[in-house]
Amino acid sequence: MLLTLLYLVAITAEAMTGALSAGRRGMDWFGVVLIACVTALGGGAVRDVLLGHYPLTWVKHPEYLLITAVAALLTIFIAPLMKRLQVLFLILDALGLVAFTLIGCLVALDMQLGMLVAAVSGMITGIFGGILRDIFCNDIPLVFRRELYASVSFAAAWCFLLCLHFGMAQEQALLITLAAGFLLRLLAIRFHWEMPKFVYRDDAEPPH
Amino acid sequence: MLLTLLYLVAITAEAMTGALSAGRRGMDWFGVVLIACVTALGGGAVRDVLLGHYPLTWVKHPEYLLITAVAALLTIFIAPLMKRLQVLFLILDALGLVAFTLIGCLVALDMQLGMLVAAVSGMITGIFGGILRDIFCNDIPLVFRRELYASVSFAAAWCFLLCLHFGMAQEQALLITLAAGFLLRLLAIRFHWEMPKFVYRDDAEPPH
Amino acid sequence: MLLTLLYLVAITAEAMTGALSAGRRGMDWFGVVLIACVTALGGGAVRDVLLGHYPLTWVKHPEYLLITAVAALLTIFIAPLMKRLQVLFLILDALGLVAFTLIGCLVALDMQLGMLVAAVSGMITGIFGGILRDIFCNDIPLVFRRELYASVSFAAAWCFLLCLHFGMAQEQALLITLAAGFLLRLLAIRFHWEMPKFVYRDDAEPPH
Repeated sequence: MLLTLLYLVAITAEAMTGALSAGRRGMDWFGVVLIACVTALGGGAVRDVLLGHYPLTWVKHPEYLLITAVAALLTIFIAPLMKRLQVLFLILDALGLVAFTLIGCLVALDMQLGMLVAAVSGMITGIFGGILRDIFCNDIPLVFRRELYASVSFAAAWCFLLCLHFGMAQEQALLITLAAGFLLRLLAIRFHWEMPKFVYRDDAEPPH
Repeated sequence: MLLTLLYLVAITAEAMTGALSAGRRGMDWFGVVLIACVTALGGGAVRDVLLGHYPLTWVKHPEYLLITAVAALLTIFIAPLMKRLQVLFLILDALGLVAFTLIGCLVALDMQLGMLVAAVSGMITGIFGGILRDIFCNDIPLVFRRELYASVSFAAAWCFLLCLHFGMAQEQALLITLAAGFLLRLLAIRFHWEMPKFVYRDDAEPPH
Repeated sequence: MLLTLLYLVAITAEAMTGALSAGRRGMDWFGVVLIACVTALGGGAVRDVLLGHYPLTWVKHPEYLLITAVAALLTIFIAPLMKRLQVLFLILDALGLVAFTLIGCLVALDMQLGMLVAAVSGMITGIFGGILRDIFCNDIPLVFRRELYASVSFAAAWCFLLCLHFGMAQEQALLITLAAGFLLRLLAIRFHWEMPKFVYRDDAEPPH
């Protein structure tokens, strides 16, 4: 129940970040809606395709397509307000990241997959919407260049899986992971925590 | 029958636009053939993967790979003529867009999926070949920045689905949609009809 | 047995080329590991998704994720040495290309698919890891712009399939293809063999 509610908040927030990205590229309204859908539902779609978990979420629940479309169109109209709402967005996005991750873990566990695959499934659900958004907008995925993001998703997945592994009830494990992941992400933004970067320069061309 | 014929025309035309895109990037002949196949068969492949509709078209009909490869190689040789054929290409591409869309709708209806999913399936089939072509060539997908294109596909899908919904015979619905979608696309090109654009500028960086 | 060994060498080598690409873009360690996994395991994943061949390799063998992650982290630490190891890398990459191709052919043959689809399956397995790496790093896929690479994969696939077709034992066919493909790739690098390029310039914009 809580997770479904968070999921709806998360796809709305992600749809709006997708719409803004499309707006930065000056796309038309149709493109804005499409990028919003890809951003909000793409992470789950990639997970389901990779795990062979059919039907996909938006095929089973086409109403989610409507929610993201409405959120995208709304974004166009309230765009001038968006700068003031940026803090709200960071918060919703942080919640969404953890909620997506938890849903991805649960899908993999339902399929009887092991912990490592479940953690990867959670992370794919959490971050691939944003990666697809950046690929469609022809950017280098931001996810690898900013404050802890993919790593928050991966850490949250392991937190959840280990809680379950050591016998905690699923509901408790969900709540603890939500709180911990959300807090970690907000702290990372506030204090600009970053992973170390790997900077490699060569004059030679890559191996192939 | 008519639809199969249109499909063959469409994959040939799409393969040729793919080959030209690859040529703009100076790719080698092998890359030209590959981009042509992705452009011509990629939309159907994305649809089939997302719907879990196996085997994919080119796996069931490998001869389509040969058709697109031959079309791509032909394009290399007749490239100097292409500028003069541009109007012909716009016409074939418009026909192909609607034909792909109709096929995508039919696949989803065969799988007993609802109207919204069928419309999305039609649009994915219609536009994703071009989107993949642009991603492989490292462009921002054109589809969202030009005259009505994705929206023609979506409108055609709804036209077809509503005709069926209100009891029209499938063959009639196909012909009407073909005519209407084709006309709409040509009018959009002729009069430069465009969707309104969403242009968003901020100095701040995106939420994540 | 030999093929499994070669596969492990290949995913390690591909993971390292992926890590270097991520380093050229200044990604963080987490991104480096992710790009490495995509580069090493992405070709097989694309093949399996397109053929509907579930579960994917890394879902069945999550230990391969660990191998690529370790290879990526190792690359960060030995990066200053990489320039001296470039010849070694070209050799491992050539072996990996042919090994991936052979595995892709075998998967398709196991699924009773025809020769053309099997050859395409081999080539997808061979080259799509590198293509995904370049798309994630926002480059034009190198694969289409350098010495024979995709074409070596395709030629190796046909060599293997024709050997089998004319009654050779599978083990022999594997060894002959490995030797021939490896040699062809090294000769292509040494003598800068390239496919002819298709260079198309127009002032007009593309058809759509």
